[in-house]
Amino acid sequence: MDNQVFSEVFSRAREHHPLVHHITNYVTVNDCANITICAGGAPVMADAREEAGEMAGFAGALVLNIGTLNPGIIESMICAGKAANDHKIPIILDPVGAGATRLRTESTLRLLDELAIAIIKGNAGEIGVLAGADAKVRGVDFAGINGDPVDIARTFARDTGITVVMSGPTDIITDGKRILLVENGHPVMGRISGTGCMASSVTGVCAAVSTDRVTAAATALAAFGLAGERAAEKSRGPGSFRPALFDEMAALTAKDVVTGARVKTA
Amino acid sequence: MDNQVFSEVFSRAREHHPLVHHITNYVTVNDCANITICAGGAPVMADAREEAGEMAGFAGALVLNIGTLNPGIIESMICAGKAANDHKIPIILDPVGAGATRLRTESTLRLLDELAIAIIKGNAGEIGVLAGADAKVRGVDFAGINGDPVDIARTFARDTGITVVMSGPTDIITDGKRILLVENGHPVMGRISGTGCMASSVTGVCAAVSTDRVTAAATALAAFGLAGERAAEKSRGPGSFRPALFDEMAALTAKDVVTGARVKTA
Amino acid sequence: MDNQVFSEVFSRAREHHPLVHHITNYVTVNDCANITICAGGAPVMADAREEAGEMAGFAGALVLNIGTLNPGIIESMICAGKAANDHKIPIILDPVGAGATRLRTESTLRLLDELAIAIIKGNAGEIGVLAGADAKVRGVDFAGINGDPVDIARTFARDTGITVVMSGPTDIITDGKRILLVENGHPVMGRISGTGCMASSVTGVCAAVSTDRVTAAATALAAFGLAGERAAEKSRGPGSFRPALFDEMAALTAKDVVTGARVKTA
Repeated sequence: MDNQVFSEVFSRAREHHPLVHHITNYVTVNDCANITICAGGAPVMADAREEAGEMAGFAGALVLNIGTLNPGIIESMICAGKAANDHKIPIILDPVGAGATRLRTESTLRLLDELAIAIIKGNAGEIGVLAGADAKVRGVDFAGINGDPVDIARTFARDTGITVVMSGPTDIITDGKRILLVENGHPVMGRISGTGCMASSVTGVCAAVSTDRVTAAATALAAFGLAGERAAEKSRGPGSFRPALFDEMAALTAKDVVTGARVKTA
Repeated sequence: MDNQVFSEVFSRAREHHPLVHHITNYVTVNDCANITICAGGAPVMADAREEAGEMAGFAGALVLNIGTLNPGIIESMICAGKAANDHKIPIILDPVGAGATRLRTESTLRLLDELAIAIIKGNAGEIGVLAGADAKVRGVDFAGINGDPVDIARTFARDTGITVVMSGPTDIITDGKRILLVENGHPVMGRISGTGCMASSVTGVCAAVSTDRVTAAATALAAFGLAGERAAEKSRGPGSFRPALFDEMAALTAKDVVTGARVKTA
Repeated sequence: MDNQVFSEVFSRAREHHPLVHHITNYVTVNDCANITICAGGAPVMADAREEAGEMAGFAGALVLNIGTLNPGIIESMICAGKAANDHKIPIILDPVGAGATRLRTESTLRLLDELAIAIIKGNAGEIGVLAGADAKVRGVDFAGINGDPVDIARTFARDTGITVVMSGPTDIITDGKRILLVENGHPVMGRISGTGCMASSVTGVCAAVSTDRVTAAATALAAFGLAGERAAEKSRGPGSFRPALFDEMAALTAKDVVTGARVKTA
């Protein structure tokens, strides 16, 4: 595939420094803030109902991540999401652990019902459960799916009108019509906490500067995966991998994206 | 002492990847998640009352850490703890700062009263205060104890039926009958935030795969301390020590535990 | 300028290990805890209304940071702040994002109204908005100010009786009479999340051991900036910069402060 389109989105993020508003979990929030900066964005985290909508109105994208949800946080997400919808700001939803508990599944379904989500990004278990497939989630990790993941993702995207990112060794990105497969990444990314959340943040950065959701998501996952590949080469284990991941994400150039992105159509 | 028993628990954690549910503080939660992975477990953090019990029911161990407690979090801990008790899942309690404020002391006493705790891990000040000894806590740090720490820990364990881990340069582990002393560790571990919390997480990983609480706790503290010793050799200060600690914990082998654990009976 | 006075404050922090109580945001709280330790202090984070005042009463300084504020947290800040005022403990206020949303601006004004703040530290946008100048904040970042920053800071300090730290490439510190300019620091400090928050924590450490607010703040910013300069030399990007920053802060000596602080009077 011609990677020029991805490198253009990538460069645009670096030029425009979009403000990316997050309502996210307190486990990986610091990683999300830092990877947003490394990807070219300006992160802001504001989860009080009293300001979440106002802050979202200033942002280029809104990332909602339910990793440590509670009913109050979901209300703030609804407030921020409605403001984002009113301002035509794309919302990226990361339904962490949907399928593991009723609260997570039902809260995600409520967000999908009340808000116009641009991109939903989850593992095959989370997306599978939401799509009504026979899928399993253990804690916040993928634990199995019956059926073809590409078919499940495509049907879910077609039925909802949402661009679906099903993360895994190969990431599946689809709006129901187009399907892109991103093969960048490294296994060590699954051995630290937060790479999934960070991928959503980078997707927010890219979606803030591109109205083509599929391209924005593919740019984010290819670039982040590429940074992960390079960081893996320079680290001794999961501990040293993390600082290296931020270094590589910050050092990544548009040219690196052209030469290194491994994206194909399905 | 024959370290074979510790290396077996250590290996079992790596094989079984137990889910370790945490309700913990927002200061060191990311470290807890990552060290859990490095020790072989799968971390999940879910503190909403609406799901804490449900999530605990799926887990292999439950870690309760009151580092940034509030009354709502304590209710969630009670919910999760009751579910853990119902499912015979071991609870590890880290009473951070008990003795420093009334809220911390009283909340810990309530958790001890309403839940069947498997292992309590604290510094000599925290354990001392809870045991009714003349002990002091300053902020969240040990500030002094009168009396013999081993006696205080043993009596507290005997009276409560809880396995007690009193952390320090030498960690004291006792169920009121057996007493193990773990000498692994390095002073730099006291110069970063979160090593105490991380030790509790690793204890959760080990307790999930061993019904012998004393052995599980000794395995955790010896392995974590050993990783700390090795990380200290490879780092220049507390900043570089932290990534090295995760690297070394992830790289540690059962054989390393056999040769490196320094555990003796008192 | 003779740097002896700064090196003395710096040394005193290392000797006295002051307890620094934080009510701060969950994005950068771990960094705040660790930099406090590296600067010689003992961090404690306790934000429940039920204990915030009690904990503040034991501390050497109280750092209030509104990065992820909500109405409940503001109440806890008021409780802790009143206890700090009663005990003559200095309060350092970091009004993160004041000017960006009504909640942030109004909450800051309420804290300024109800508490006796010793030092307020913000970027030129935040301080400018609070001073009534024509200033802008985008998310949590400085976005512009009309007028002379030194004049605005000095007038604000004079009118309020609060020592003002306006952070930037050159930090401006003033109590309305004296003005110090600190030129230490490195641009990469603006490329990671949390350096502003960490600067406030280090200011808390220094304010706990010096009643001269201007000197305390200048010591903190010079020492922290100096650590940043050294860390920048030893790192490859923002990811490796962070552990290096903690290493360098921990390794910094009083002699380094004498030779390296770049502070001048305006």
